[in-house]
Amino acid sequence: MLAVHLEKRRVNVRNVRKPSRPEGFALIRLLCAGICNTDLELQRGYYGFRGTPGHEFVGEVVEADTANLVGRRVVGEINLACRRCDWCSKGLGRHCPRRTVLGIVRHPGAFRELLTLPEVNLHVIPDSVTNEEAVFVEPLAAACEILDQVSIPDDCEVAVLGDGKLGLLISQALNARRKRVHLYGRHRNKLGVAGRVGVATTVVKKKLPQTAYDWVVDATGSSDGLRQAITMTRPRGTIFMKSTIHGATPIDAVPVIVNEITLVGSRCGRFEPAIELLQSHKVNVKDMISDILSLSDAPRGFARAAQRGVLKVLLDAQ
Amino acid sequence: MLAVHLEKRRVNVRNVRKPSRPEGFALIRLLCAGICNTDLELQRGYYGFRGTPGHEFVGEVVEADTANLVGRRVVGEINLACRRCDWCSKGLGRHCPRRTVLGIVRHPGAFRELLTLPEVNLHVIPDSVTNEEAVFVEPLAAACEILDQVSIPDDCEVAVLGDGKLGLLISQALNARRKRVHLYGRHRNKLGVAGRVGVATTVVKKKLPQTAYDWVVDATGSSDGLRQAITMTRPRGTIFMKSTIHGATPIDAVPVIVNEITLVGSRCGRFEPAIELLQSHKVNVKDMISDILSLSDAPRGFARAAQRGVLKVLLDAQ
Repeated sequence: MLAVHLEKRRVNVRNVRKPSRPEGFALIRLLCAGICNTDLELQRGYYGFRGTPGHEFVGEVVEADTANLVGRRVVGEINLACRRCDWCSKGLGRHCPRRTVLGIVRHPGAFRELLTLPEVNLHVIPDSVTNEEAVFVEPLAAACEILDQVSIPDDCEVAVLGDGKLGLLISQALNARRKRVHLYGRHRNKLGVAGRVGVATTVVKKKLPQTAYDWVVDATGSSDGLRQAITMTRPRGTIFMKSTIHGATPIDAVPVIVNEITLVGSRCGRFEPAIELLQSHKVNVKDMISDILSLSDAPRGFARAAQRGVLKVLLDAQ
Repeated sequence: MLAVHLEKRRVNVRNVRKPSRPEGFALIRLLCAGICNTDLELQRGYYGFRGTPGHEFVGEVVEADTANLVGRRVVGEINLACRRCDWCSKGLGRHCPRRTVLGIVRHPGAFRELLTLPEVNLHVIPDSVTNEEAVFVEPLAAACEILDQVSIPDDCEVAVLGDGKLGLLISQALNARRKRVHLYGRHRNKLGVAGRVGVATTVVKKKLPQTAYDWVVDATGSSDGLRQAITMTRPRGTIFMKSTIHGATPIDAVPVIVNEITLVGSRCGRFEPAIELLQSHKVNVKDMISDILSLSDAPRGFARAAQRGVLKVLLDAQ
């Protein structure tokens, strides 16, 4: 079977053996997968990764212990938790210190024709959600995580910085959950994706509004994003940190302290709210697809995903 | 009357005219004042300050609109709010954008024989609290602010980094409020102040415990403190930022995001909990006094306060 292999910054496609299925795991045939910025970071050498990447996928269960999973279309939570530690017993396996992570940490990823995941990680996708939409469950869950972490009152104004894939999903998710979202970005065409579902958008030219929001999300993916978010936030306001920038990010601690601002680091989320949102069709993910290539074309897909102005590149395995 | 004057990094004592008392204000005769690190920062040139500094004080009301304030011993909240804006109407005059600040922003400070403050800013000090203790109300209120911002469950372990004045007050305040506090610092004698009221203490030699606390307070006053606090914090943990470092503080955003850590900027606090704590004698402030000099000796007081190993320097005006 085909599998993407990443090593020393190079992406290639190999023929590998079908994986064995441990007890409690499902064997899943890939239908469609998405290339995420984290995959591009793995390629750039973060985490010293070598192997098959990929953690955004939808697939069909081929074999499983639970008979009625077989034949179902599923997406899968990416953290494989130990299910025994304190974190796991609190239902927070996403923070299990012994976890492996699909396509990121010691568990082969989804960019291959057959993959394995624990059955408990799987979520069945309703028929009304297409494969191309279902691929967005994982990143949309990360967007929805904000709403799980902190209770943002309805009708509050929220500024989202950054019109990349994550900024578009966050702004749409918050908008669907009755927040008054204002998305700031540099690309009129990308902003349009969120604009079409009712998110207010502004093309950033020079200065962003200062001390203007109680809620700000930094999804710029830039080391300057957090600094900008701090200047936009009112006293006692909250900033969600969604830009995983490697290396030191300089922040000015004085306004954070003087204005008693709260910064909330935010990562993966539960899949249920994301599946619900896709079912409701209140988020526009179709317009976020820049390209659909075949799995065997993965090297070109990685190159394409790294280009300026490109949003989601999907790898089709059907 | 005598007043301390700060200009171009030089501290001197001048003879100035008695201040006039606006309506709603009290005229207060200084009894005792404390030199704070912020005063030393003003001296170093931050905020372009020129004038009389000082915001930690206890005094006796000489004149006031409210007759029964006259003759009472008082301390005073340092933020002079407009009392008309949205922040003020929510009871958060400490964040009023039009505020002046005693001895810091456009309101002459407390290092002078007579000062003025709005009567609404004043809190009468109970007889059981001495002048030397009452001077600590303002910084102790800033320490207690943490408990007002976030609900920390009783018996939780809290790590406090930094055995300077603020670290000692924070660790003692949290300890008095039934948290299990561990204070980390570099000075055995300073740690002893908190140790004597039951705070666990450790002299930091090399490495701090990693991923070990759900609650961490950075009161190091060092730009490295926040970085250290992040490494000590467990997933989903909270860090209180109490070190007002000027300029860029480098932080590693990746562990904040991956571990979903919350950072809470924290500044001034309400005076009531601080007065209560001093009355209860559950905090040891007497051992934090390194020196008591007369107000006319303020230049020497500033020099002394800036020396290594020195804790609080008081200026006595009786």
